[in-house]
Amino acid sequence: MLPKSIINLIEEFSKLPGVGPKTAARLCFYLLSKSNEDVNKLGKAINNLKNGLQNCQVCYNISTESICPICVSNRRDRSIICVVEESLDIIAIDKTKYQGLYHVLGGVISPIDGIGPENLRISQLLNRLNNDIKEVILATNPSLEGEATSMYIASQVEKLKKEGKINTNVKLTRIARGLPVGGDLEYTDEVTLSRALEGRREFKNG
Amino acid sequence: MLPKSIINLIEEFSKLPGVGPKTAARLCFYLLSKSNEDVNKLGKAINNLKNGLQNCQVCYNISTESICPICVSNRRDRSIICVVEESLDIIAIDKTKYQGLYHVLGGVISPIDGIGPENLRISQLLNRLNNDIKEVILATNPSLEGEATSMYIASQVEKLKKEGKINTNVKLTRIARGLPVGGDLEYTDEVTLSRALEGRREFKNG
Repeated sequence: MLPKSIINLIEEFSKLPGVGPKTAARLCFYLLSKSNEDVNKLGKAINNLKNGLQNCQVCYNISTESICPICVSNRRDRSIICVVEESLDIIAIDKTKYQGLYHVLGGVISPIDGIGPENLRISQLLNRLNNDIKEVILATNPSLEGEATSMYIASQVEKLKKEGKINTNVKLTRIARGLPVGGDLEYTDEVTLSRALEGRREFKNG
Repeated sequence: MLPKSIINLIEEFSKLPGVGPKTAARLCFYLLSKSNEDVNKLGKAINNLKNGLQNCQVCYNISTESICPICVSNRRDRSIICVVEESLDIIAIDKTKYQGLYHVLGGVISPIDGIGPENLRISQLLNRLNNDIKEVILATNPSLEGEATSMYIASQVEKLKKEGKINTNVKLTRIARGLPVGGDLEYTDEVTLSRALEGRREFKNG
């Protein structure tokens, strides 16, 4: 009963993550209430999204250049690599004081989805571990798949160390699991609380 | 630091209702992980959304024709008009057994947003109230503005009846307020519960 162009857009919106058919219909009717100009601005932004974008040849972050601004920068600490799942994670981490380099895996190991280590950029990460690298921070998500991926990478790094192929001084670290700032101890799940206790630190003032 | 095309799309997505900057970024990076073809399908659906769409000249529902399929249909009960805020509401009501006609107001009276009765299609509704119409169902949302709009329309209809300009037999009704099916009495707010009690009906089996 609905015009075809509306049904079509509702279908396309429904493909987005977290958007069900009702939200899709609401978005669609919201656009219908807007001017042609506003609607086309969104359409154009989507169509132009990938224009001139590529993956950085070093860290695989999304970039307009063949090597991304972070990998090119002189202000960055080139001895630390922070390993993340997606480019989106770089935005989050770069809002902190972190000043090292990155490596984007492009996902996590997930046998259910048919994604094995060979589908991620793990070998590319291992190739980056030359003598200049002092630390690799594993910053995958605190999910089952994220943890498994970090464990796999750690095992590969240890293997290369034993084989003498990389510097044995390369330190492997993992971002802390614990209570989020502003969180509530009472409502924290057992696993997080166990990790928060395991990761306890000496109390220092200031 | 992010490429311009990504920032641009995050901005455009953020304008959608219920989409904050973080959701916008997630949607944007989701699209980046999709093929060019998939991304352009969404862009094209948005750009084509309004092509050939217009408001029905009778009920102001969105339509590809100058008079919408509902207003043209012979199977519809042409003696009842259900008054709704938006075209989207027609989809919801048409999933019920309702078989009458509709009238889309195009919003609600909202002085804060500078929307008065003259900005809605109220005079067009009053013009439709000829001798064939037996009932007008007011189906605005159960919000302050929705209620105020229904009350305004009701007062205008009563005025026309007194002036003898429309049939005094035209019945004005309002959709029931009460407990939603599957709802929980314990968690229902006072106002809804008061309305549910006011609107109580004789118990009938079956």
